Amino acid sequence: MSGKKKFTIGIDYGTESCRAVLVDVQNGDLAASSVYQYTHGVITQKLPDTDIELGPDWALQHPKDYINALKRTIPKLMKESQIDSDQVIGIGVDFIGSTVIPTTSDGTPLALIDEFKDEPDAWPKIWKHHAAQEKASQLTQLAVDRFETFLDRYGGKINAEWFFPKVWEILDNSSNVYNAADRIIEASDWIVWQLTGVESRNICAAGYKALWSKNEGFPLETFFGALNPGLANVVDDKMKREITPLGEQVGELTEEAAKWMKLKPGIPVAAGILDGHAAVPAATVVEPGSMAMILGTSFAHIILSNKEFRVPGMSGMVEDGIVPGHIGYEAGQAGGGDHFAWFLENAVPSVYEKEAHKRKISIFDYLEVKAAELEPAESGLIALDWWNGNRSILVDSDLTGLMLGYSLSTKPEEIYRALLEATAFGTRKIFETFIASGVPINEIIITGGKPTNNKLLLNILANVTRMEIKLAKCLYPSALGSAMYAAVAAGEARGGYATIQEASKNMAHLKKETFPPNNNDKKTYNRLYTEYTLLHDYFGYGHNNAMKRLKNLRMNILRKKQ
Amino acid sequence: MSGKKKFTIGIDYGTESCRAVLVDVQNGDLAASSVYQYTHGVITQKLPDTDIELGPDWALQHPKDYINALKRTIPKLMKESQIDSDQVIGIGVDFIGSTVIPTTSDGTPLALIDEFKDEPDAWPKIWKHHAAQEKASQLTQLAVDRFETFLDRYGGKINAEWFFPKVWEILDNSSNVYNAADRIIEASDWIVWQLTGVESRNICAAGYKALWSKNEGFPLETFFGALNPGLANVVDDKMKREITPLGEQVGELTEEAAKWMKLKPGIPVAAGILDGHAAVPAATVVEPGSMAMILGTSFAHIILSNKEFRVPGMSGMVEDGIVPGHIGYEAGQAGGGDHFAWFLENAVPSVYEKEAHKRKISIFDYLEVKAAELEPAESGLIALDWWNGNRSILVDSDLTGLMLGYSLSTKPEEIYRALLEATAFGTRKIFETFIASGVPINEIIITGGKPTNNKLLLNILANVTRMEIKLAKCLYPSALGSAMYAAVAAGEARGGYATIQEASKNMAHLKKETFPPNNNDKKTYNRLYTEYTLLHDYFGYGHNNAMKRLKNLRMNILRKKQ
Repeated sequence: MSGKKKFTIGIDYGTESCRAVLVDVQNGDLAASSVYQYTHGVITQKLPDTDIELGPDWALQHPKDYINALKRTIPKLMKESQIDSDQVIGIGVDFIGSTVIPTTSDGTPLALIDEFKDEPDAWPKIWKHHAAQEKASQLTQLAVDRFETFLDRYGGKINAEWFFPKVWEILDNSSNVYNAADRIIEASDWIVWQLTGVESRNICAAGYKALWSKNEGFPLETFFGALNPGLANVVDDKMKREITPLGEQVGELTEEAAKWMKLKPGIPVAAGILDGHAAVPAATVVEPGSMAMILGTSFAHIILSNKEFRVPGMSGMVEDGIVPGHIGYEAGQAGGGDHFAWFLENAVPSVYEKEAHKRKISIFDYLEVKAAELEPAESGLIALDWWNGNRSILVDSDLTGLMLGYSLSTKPEEIYRALLEATAFGTRKIFETFIASGVPINEIIITGGKPTNNKLLLNILANVTRMEIKLAKCLYPSALGSAMYAAVAAGEARGGYATIQEASKNMAHLKKETFPPNNNDKKTYNRLYTEYTLLHDYFGYGHNNAMKRLKNLRMNILRKKQ
Repeated sequence: MSGKKKFTIGIDYGTESCRAVLVDVQNGDLAASSVYQYTHGVITQKLPDTDIELGPDWALQHPKDYINALKRTIPKLMKESQIDSDQVIGIGVDFIGSTVIPTTSDGTPLALIDEFKDEPDAWPKIWKHHAAQEKASQLTQLAVDRFETFLDRYGGKINAEWFFPKVWEILDNSSNVYNAADRIIEASDWIVWQLTGVESRNICAAGYKALWSKNEGFPLETFFGALNPGLANVVDDKMKREITPLGEQVGELTEEAAKWMKLKPGIPVAAGILDGHAAVPAATVVEPGSMAMILGTSFAHIILSNKEFRVPGMSGMVEDGIVPGHIGYEAGQAGGGDHFAWFLENAVPSVYEKEAHKRKISIFDYLEVKAAELEPAESGLIALDWWNGNRSILVDSDLTGLMLGYSLSTKPEEIYRALLEATAFGTRKIFETFIASGVPINEIIITGGKPTNNKLLLNILANVTRMEIKLAKCLYPSALGSAMYAAVAAGEARGGYATIQEASKNMAHLKKETFPPNNNDKKTYNRLYTEYTLLHDYFGYGHNNAMKRLKNLRMNILRKKQ
């Protein structure tokens, strides 16, 4: 057996589906891949099998989909690759986050228990669940008032997508559910618990989503108690103070989980990790100065540094949060590929669909062709890329999208291009903030999903940021990253690696093709970026709070209509 | 013959087509109607039968279409109605304006002469031709610098759509064409010249588009000379100082014109009038205090008053300009139905088309159904209705459209409704400006084209303006108005009327159905209107000139690409 190749499995739980990969540990080659579309998708309207309607901005998932994903994908991997279960030396899992699951003491999600299945707060709330915005704002305000030091690590604002706003929302909406929950746990840890029988809390989710740091631990009981007395002991009652480093083995695959996956029990399972962060070493980013930009429905920007800086509006800085030994800085754009998907679904006239059909290309490709024919500034349009709020640097999910410059001759491809450009301007805003705060960016490496195939977007990114854009060479970056952490959890003795740096050096690669900026476009985009900044600051810093007031009116109507 | 019913013909030259009606003089009943779609439509790309490309913002028409319209529509009217030519006691014509036609001394358009047909400036430039914006701005600036009194009558700004900016543009682009033009004339007067052989200049076009007033006449030679020495004698060289009142007979139908139309020669032809203004008496608006709102591709707002007020940003105030004895105030929105047509063409996804098809209703009706299900403010969107610039009260064709409040759940019907609402906010802005300037508005009467059938728009207008909306009862308001002025030109002796008030009392009617405001929507719209005002003032008054800077960049690129 020792002569046989070694493999690890990486499992990547996303927003709509779960992707599993089987990867050659020696060189990162993909041996097999399988995807499972969640039966219940993202639940935003009604609780499954009920007439119970969810409020606006709610977004849940079904825990059964998580286990079914294992049952459906892993056996396929093994069958497709024809390798032996013994050759699998480790399993790693990443998950969208913060995904908050209240469970019993044995890890059973309350959503699966009859008594609680009609309670919306018993269900896993995913990142997209923005209903806890009020809680996040109050939490931030209290932290400001109390001079809480953790605030500085999160750019001064706590995001509604994170762990504690959602936990507090559970207590506030349904003390019933809160009290019945023996544990409240991130999905990235919950799934590892399901695989190993061991409850752990990974440093990545704890650091980026649950306000934990190596030096200070979690916020104090007095802080939580000031939010709501019932919340004072949330950490000791519902969580764990022990935090597991990345690449560490949490436990071994249990008999039951092995059966789901048609694997042998005993395979080492690595600590969980957040999905975006798993993609970082898979993009070869394991040393300071290189920025991994993960393009998916939303965009994440992650850079490592040895020094501690305070970056306004960043999503978080976590020591050892991605690569042990380095501080991982994260920023993000709440709307990325989502914008383009929205546009495709809601704003493309049928003549365009027909033309794309005629040319035998996808409508996305057709729009790209049409939009690429335009020069920067030719459309006269400029947009604020806040269809899903602003994560960095404003950290405000109540901001909304804006498009300025419409004329009667405005064409769909012009609007589409303005959306691409706006996301690039949002990226530049983040880059400039990092650099101004002392974190240098020497290199940009793009990885992620669909938007990485959009050459026009990559060109625009290069010209707007005025930097050469490089691309990670892998189909499923987060899943590959998880497989890499699995190789570290397996360790050198089993045929894996001692560190994630070693794993990255061997298993991660870049594409040859790069996207350099060109001088003409750079100049025009400098002018457009000035316009973007004016609008960004005017609407983002409260000179005109129209977006918030309109959203508030809208939410009141939607709540009344329920 | 005296026992036979009397009829008049009204001919309405619009942007895309010409509509002719035959109307019973006694009660305004429509005896027959016919429409002619211009073969050449609006010419924006290339000069007919050439490869000569037009600049951005150019909009021309073909003079042959004007004559063909007569040949095609009038014989149809007569055939359809089976009445005798003797029963036609008058002809009236209205025309979109300012439509500027350079001609020879006998009225032949230079565009029809071989020597000039390749010169874009030889062709009739219609209102939509916005390429003379720079000229309009310079003209305004000079008038400001010289304290010209006429400025006050036009809200302080001269519009690029008007007569003199276009004339100056001819001289500037092609002194050749300018010098060859014995006459430069409004289309509303040119067509009357073709019908009668008599060159006249109607008070409506002279007053609203050519800076003329009863007290002051045209601007001085010194003013025109300061624009360009070559322009100093434009009035005496190319125009007429004698101005014909509305409802006055200019002449009788010539043999040649009678042949085109298969009518008998000798029928009285009334002075021309602008199309929107012709609709005013047809909407029963002939006395002070009642506001006629003409909804077409653009919106016009016309109100009569006995007193002279200075209304900022109005399009014009002209004594006797619509109803002799009253001052006619006009304001306008450069984008009205145009917005909705743009949306329909460029932003409605195919699923909506399919659903409309399934329900066997038009896509417009389907959007109206969907949008009507929404409450005010439910979409979270607000727009600035400046897709075609702003006519009143900002008088700035370089402003562009804005949509704010997009989220990932924004649906097409929400954007559509936001566009409807934005045009209503634009209307309220105009109403408030009139009222604040001392011109009371006691009544609103809607007339016009397609948008008058949009009940959702009418409801929104009622709730936004907080006034009951009444509707004129006629299919073709401008054409009916022209037929009414024709009845006045015919005079009592021939079976017509002595005044336009008398004609209106008998020939114009209102619908029974009205659209009253409701209290709940009024309140919400007050809040939204506050947001509209903030954005209107921020972008409209130069706090952020993004729209102009972006348009400028865009225009430079388009010019370069030519």
